Amino acid sequence: MNRHISGQFDSEMDSAKRLLIEMGALVEQQLADAGEAFFRHSDESASRISEVEDQVNTMEKRLDDACVQIIALRQPTATDLRTMISVMRSSTDLERIGDEAEKIAKLARKLARHPVPGDQYSDLRKLHAAVEALLFEALDAVGRGDADKALRVIAMDAAVDELYRAIHEERARSLAEGVDNVDIVLAVLWAARGLERIGDHAKNICEYIVYAVRGKDVRHSGVSRLS
Amino acid sequence: MNRHISGQFDSEMDSAKRLLIEMGALVEQQLADAGEAFFRHSDESASRISEVEDQVNTMEKRLDDACVQIIALRQPTATDLRTMISVMRSSTDLERIGDEAEKIAKLARKLARHPVPGDQYSDLRKLHAAVEALLFEALDAVGRGDADKALRVIAMDAAVDELYRAIHEERARSLAEGVDNVDIVLAVLWAARGLERIGDHAKNICEYIVYAVRGKDVRHSGVSRLS
Repeated sequence: MNRHISGQFDSEMDSAKRLLIEMGALVEQQLADAGEAFFRHSDESASRISEVEDQVNTMEKRLDDACVQIIALRQPTATDLRTMISVMRSSTDLERIGDEAEKIAKLARKLARHPVPGDQYSDLRKLHAAVEALLFEALDAVGRGDADKALRVIAMDAAVDELYRAIHEERARSLAEGVDNVDIVLAVLWAARGLERIGDHAKNICEYIVYAVRGKDVRHSGVSRLS
Repeated sequence: MNRHISGQFDSEMDSAKRLLIEMGALVEQQLADAGEAFFRHSDESASRISEVEDQVNTMEKRLDDACVQIIALRQPTATDLRTMISVMRSSTDLERIGDEAEKIAKLARKLARHPVPGDQYSDLRKLHAAVEALLFEALDAVGRGDADKALRVIAMDAAVDELYRAIHEERARSLAEGVDNVDIVLAVLWAARGLERIGDHAKNICEYIVYAVRGKDVRHSGVSRLS
């Protein structure tokens, strides 16, 4: 490529990455709102999430179109092509994180008629905070295009899975022993599963970074399995 | 493209599509085995799924590499480029269907110490059969590259969601009323959720077909929302 074309290509690729980061920020907001909605049994944050979801969907389509255009017109190869493909894949995972957040917020709507339990969902709050941190770090790795950091973030997912498993065991046991409020326990189980999935999506995004930067597919590999 | 190059390109694209269909057949097997494992509380089919999973993961990587190679070397545009991207995306969804199937089979391992309940899981069997049909039709639409058929399959997912909701309501109510075996009810709830996700993945694959053939992104559109 001559210098002029290659400069245009770099700037197009940068805008695509910037759009992905912007989309990530919206999705982070959805995740925060989902927690807010659930932990306070609040209908208000739940409605905000649906509004943001429309924006996220629009951005996903824009980003997709932009990447297809770039690939078709600039015909990148090697790392550049892998980066474009990774951006497209990441946007799908981000959008699905938004979907999970919306589902968690919908659970809050069903809880609205119950008082918030005395423990304030301390177990689920820990899991939510861990997943927020994971997503934040994953997006930071995207912004920096940092494969080493991405590998560290992938390893963080193990702690999320551990928190999830503990909630699942504890809450399933409480159901077996008999609880007053089955609705709340089931909602916690569903929300926890949703958060665990969000962690998986954040991990996927990190795997795409490693793939883009190093050309190495770490999906289904030992590295990924560690987490 | 001259005729020679274009012929090579067509045959490369055909092999990629064939690989996707082969991968789909393996994943269908995983879904069948998952049902078998769950409904009979059988450990045997559960082990088979893990073996097939390794093959599926290997195929996903091969397919990915093949598509990246084709895009880099042949530099397709328009429908051809969209088809390659759709094949890559579909393979990710297929692989995740395999993951869900494996999770359902793992539930069977936990059930092994319980007898199979008298209703033989008739509700979950219906859902499983509906999801199997959905996946079968989705793969058929892939094989034919038939966007009309893909749209019809997308519409089929509504019935799957309905079956899922009915199971969820009924089983949550039984938990609230008190049941002897909470383990089994929770396993049914998790398996049902997994099957519902598999339906979503099959739907995603159909959306990619429409996108590839028509250049129209039906994700998050009314068409998709209908289901």
